[in-house]
Amino acid sequence: MQPKFPSESVTTLTDLVLPGETNPLNNLFGGELLARMDRAASITARRHSRRICVTASVNHVAFNRAIPLGSVVTVESKVSRTFNTSMEIFIDVWIEDRESGIKNKANEAIYTFVAVDETGRPVPVPPIIPETELEKQRYEAALRRKQLSLVLAGKMKPNEATELKALFIE
Amino acid sequence: MQPKFPSESVTTLTDLVLPGETNPLNNLFGGELLARMDRAASITARRHSRRICVTASVNHVAFNRAIPLGSVVTVESKVSRTFNTSMEIFIDVWIEDRESGIKNKANEAIYTFVAVDETGRPVPVPPIIPETELEKQRYEAALRRKQLSLVLAGKMKPNEATELKALFIE
Amino acid sequence: MQPKFPSESVTTLTDLVLPGETNPLNNLFGGELLARMDRAASITARRHSRRICVTASVNHVAFNRAIPLGSVVTVESKVSRTFNTSMEIFIDVWIEDRESGIKNKANEAIYTFVAVDETGRPVPVPPIIPETELEKQRYEAALRRKQLSLVLAGKMKPNEATELKALFIE
Amino acid sequence: MQPKFPSESVTTLTDLVLPGETNPLNNLFGGELLARMDRAASITARRHSRRICVTASVNHVAFNRAIPLGSVVTVESKVSRTFNTSMEIFIDVWIEDRESGIKNKANEAIYTFVAVDETGRPVPVPPIIPETELEKQRYEAALRRKQLSLVLAGKMKPNEATELKALFIE
Amino acid sequence: MQPKFPSESVTTLTDLVLPGETNPLNNLFGGELLARMDRAASITARRHSRRICVTASVNHVAFNRAIPLGSVVTVESKVSRTFNTSMEIFIDVWIEDRESGIKNKANEAIYTFVAVDETGRPVPVPPIIPETELEKQRYEAALRRKQLSLVLAGKMKPNEATELKALFIE
Amino acid sequence: MQPKFPSESVTTLTDLVLPGETNPLNNLFGGELLARMDRAASITARRHSRRICVTASVNHVAFNRAIPLGSVVTVESKVSRTFNTSMEIFIDVWIEDRESGIKNKANEAIYTFVAVDETGRPVPVPPIIPETELEKQRYEAALRRKQLSLVLAGKMKPNEATELKALFIE
Repeated sequence: MQPKFPSESVTTLTDLVLPGETNPLNNLFGGELLARMDRAASITARRHSRRICVTASVNHVAFNRAIPLGSVVTVESKVSRTFNTSMEIFIDVWIEDRESGIKNKANEAIYTFVAVDETGRPVPVPPIIPETELEKQRYEAALRRKQLSLVLAGKMKPNEATELKALFIE
Repeated sequence: MQPKFPSESVTTLTDLVLPGETNPLNNLFGGELLARMDRAASITARRHSRRICVTASVNHVAFNRAIPLGSVVTVESKVSRTFNTSMEIFIDVWIEDRESGIKNKANEAIYTFVAVDETGRPVPVPPIIPETELEKQRYEAALRRKQLSLVLAGKMKPNEATELKALFIE
Repeated sequence: MQPKFPSESVTTLTDLVLPGETNPLNNLFGGELLARMDRAASITARRHSRRICVTASVNHVAFNRAIPLGSVVTVESKVSRTFNTSMEIFIDVWIEDRESGIKNKANEAIYTFVAVDETGRPVPVPPIIPETELEKQRYEAALRRKQLSLVLAGKMKPNEATELKALFIE
Repeated sequence: MQPKFPSESVTTLTDLVLPGETNPLNNLFGGELLARMDRAASITARRHSRRICVTASVNHVAFNRAIPLGSVVTVESKVSRTFNTSMEIFIDVWIEDRESGIKNKANEAIYTFVAVDETGRPVPVPPIIPETELEKQRYEAALRRKQLSLVLAGKMKPNEATELKALFIE
Repeated sequence: MQPKFPSESVTTLTDLVLPGETNPLNNLFGGELLARMDRAASITARRHSRRICVTASVNHVAFNRAIPLGSVVTVESKVSRTFNTSMEIFIDVWIEDRESGIKNKANEAIYTFVAVDETGRPVPVPPIIPETELEKQRYEAALRRKQLSLVLAGKMKPNEATELKALFIE
Repeated sequence: MQPKFPSESVTTLTDLVLPGETNPLNNLFGGELLARMDRAASITARRHSRRICVTASVNHVAFNRAIPLGSVVTVESKVSRTFNTSMEIFIDVWIEDRESGIKNKANEAIYTFVAVDETGRPVPVPPIIPETELEKQRYEAALRRKQLSLVLAGKMKPNEATELKALFIE
């Protein structure tokens, strides 16, 4: 299968925060942000694989900064690594200041999607080739995250998680 | 005021069509598309002017192609021309084929926004300098559209709409 | 086909403005109003034609007056003119003052719908006979608007747009 | 206080049934219909009293006929009787057949609203004068319904509910 | 058919009040509460009958206490009585104070559901056996409510409504 | 601070899957499920701390089983461990079979919330005392998860993550 670059499936969802999408503190409701990230990431997975894709897991979401009512929010998602039938998608969330135009990072998230055929069976996806420095770092770290999630789920022995183990023993 | 380029405020809103956003024919509901275009265009207006912006009018929307449930839809908005305190925003809507990845134009729309200060009074916006061929064409046509809307609203005499008149008399 | 009167398909959608339908300035969000007008107008088109109807274009929407949270909003739509398989629908939007009961015009819009059969092919619609003075004015102006949209779309030569041309040359 | 007629505050909310408003049987979701009736009825209460109005109770709703996806639904609400600070509102729901244009009654509901001042205290509302035969019937029956709800709530002794008692003893 | 206890089908729906679910007074919108009660009650009906269930009527809803933005709201629904193919469902709504944790009753409602087979025909449901004191009271009162709704609908003569009649004659 | 038990703040949100909440495969849309879990978990955090609580991170969500349109879904959330000002919340999601009444586990998720005062500053929360076997297991594992997230965020050296390290070295 022909490898692809992250830039071929990057997805940008820029949108407002309206009152119907806030929490009682007048910031973007966490559940609404989780939904927007899921929508963007599923489009990235589909663009990379050209297959139907389903959310397999949310691996990590950090809510570092509240996003106030009226903000312009950009959700950007990219494939960080592929594993046979699954794709790890990295999502960066930015808010921009109306007066200065400066963008600040608000959140970061990692989702995993699986590509399936019409009957719902997993199918292989093209490999990814990271290009930028950040893409390469995330590509490397993805393997440790994968091992970690297998270890925590009891599907891999800690001993066999060589990449991860190396973190703790030198 | 420092002029700007359309590329400085272009806004991309890529999103899915979920069942809760369809009409009874299982296509994206027209009202939902109008709302998405309004959200993207208002962000473009705000990015260009760095002001609060309010929708002044929808000048034209053509629904050329139905957008089926499950589509990936990209709404892209750009400033096509500015007029003292108002901005004409051109919006292109694309759908992409999952298997081939090919994007097709589905709709096109023109909205007008006005920049206001905190008390709601219109304030001047930076001029725009079109760069691409398409941006230049739309910039030219915007003046005819402006005259036309003034003529139809009875705020300009047809005689004075020189740009528009030239269309009919050679 | 038996002609009909605008009063036979007039549609009234009176509703509140709740917080989930506002923009960050606490007025009715423009996209929500566009959606309500689309819903009302599509019912008028369907009542006139007794066919499935799809939105063909939004020809013009003027947002003259912000509609604050808590308002009672009336969207009223009527067929202004028919053209073989299409119908121009005129929409008036009113808000009413709670204490005095007085209604004020807030917006005005023009949408075009096409009647289709079960396979999606356009089918003829009954002619319309305007009755009131306002209906007659809008009926007349509809022809100029039709020619204009054909000229702007490059589907009619300005020379042939006789009704429209007459505006500019006397 | 100047009495009013039901026709002065009648409210019509005609709208579509879109997929996002259905239940798993593809009919209008009951909760969505209850919400539309609440919106229309609260507008009627406000138009009659020119006051802020809050829902005090839903006295009865009969779901006689399922309302399928794609239907045109008309919710019509009218004041049926007033009681010092409260108003009983009668709501009729109609669906219309696309091909024949015939309207059929789908549901019927009775809500009660109370008019309040800015501090939330109940304030008197104008009396109502029923005009049509149906308005008169509903006006009469409203008193029995009022007594009944007081009896069931333990706020009136059955003995004192003269209107209601007369139903059972002749 | 094997009788069941109310505790076997009790349903709890605890949720927040977010800004998109409020009315202009910043309290939970009445229509939204009606919808939440409909959802919970329909689950109770389905759990008791293990059948598809449809809302037949809303018999009574009392809005005693406004539910402010940001509240934690618990909707609890239980079968109060069964009648061959229908089930009366009693719904209690509680709000809880964040600081003290104390729960207060905000509303109370009674809905009726009918169990149907795949073709939509009513089918018998298991009898209910009330256990607590409150369940027994509501079970008793349900018969009077049933007779009342038949009398008001003209389907039962007041004379035959023995349970109800006894309220008025001693 | 007085310790508490998980059972004191357990939250149950049982609800339906309606068409407006599905993805194009007619299953519950992932983003909607993430939002429901966020709502339930934030109520648990608030009940445990009696403070305003904000989502700090989503640590893990596994989508093991698709949840079809029309399902009854139960989201149950419990405090699994507390750390000074933060609470780890464990969420189990169940769907139940209409005919047999049997409940099956569909998903599992871990969210972290922080308690804050009115000015947004983190405040201490009561300790938790796990009671059941499952609560104890989750309590133990929470410490490893906490260390892991600190290591991955570069806020703790792998060497100091003693609990976690022990997994890899024996």
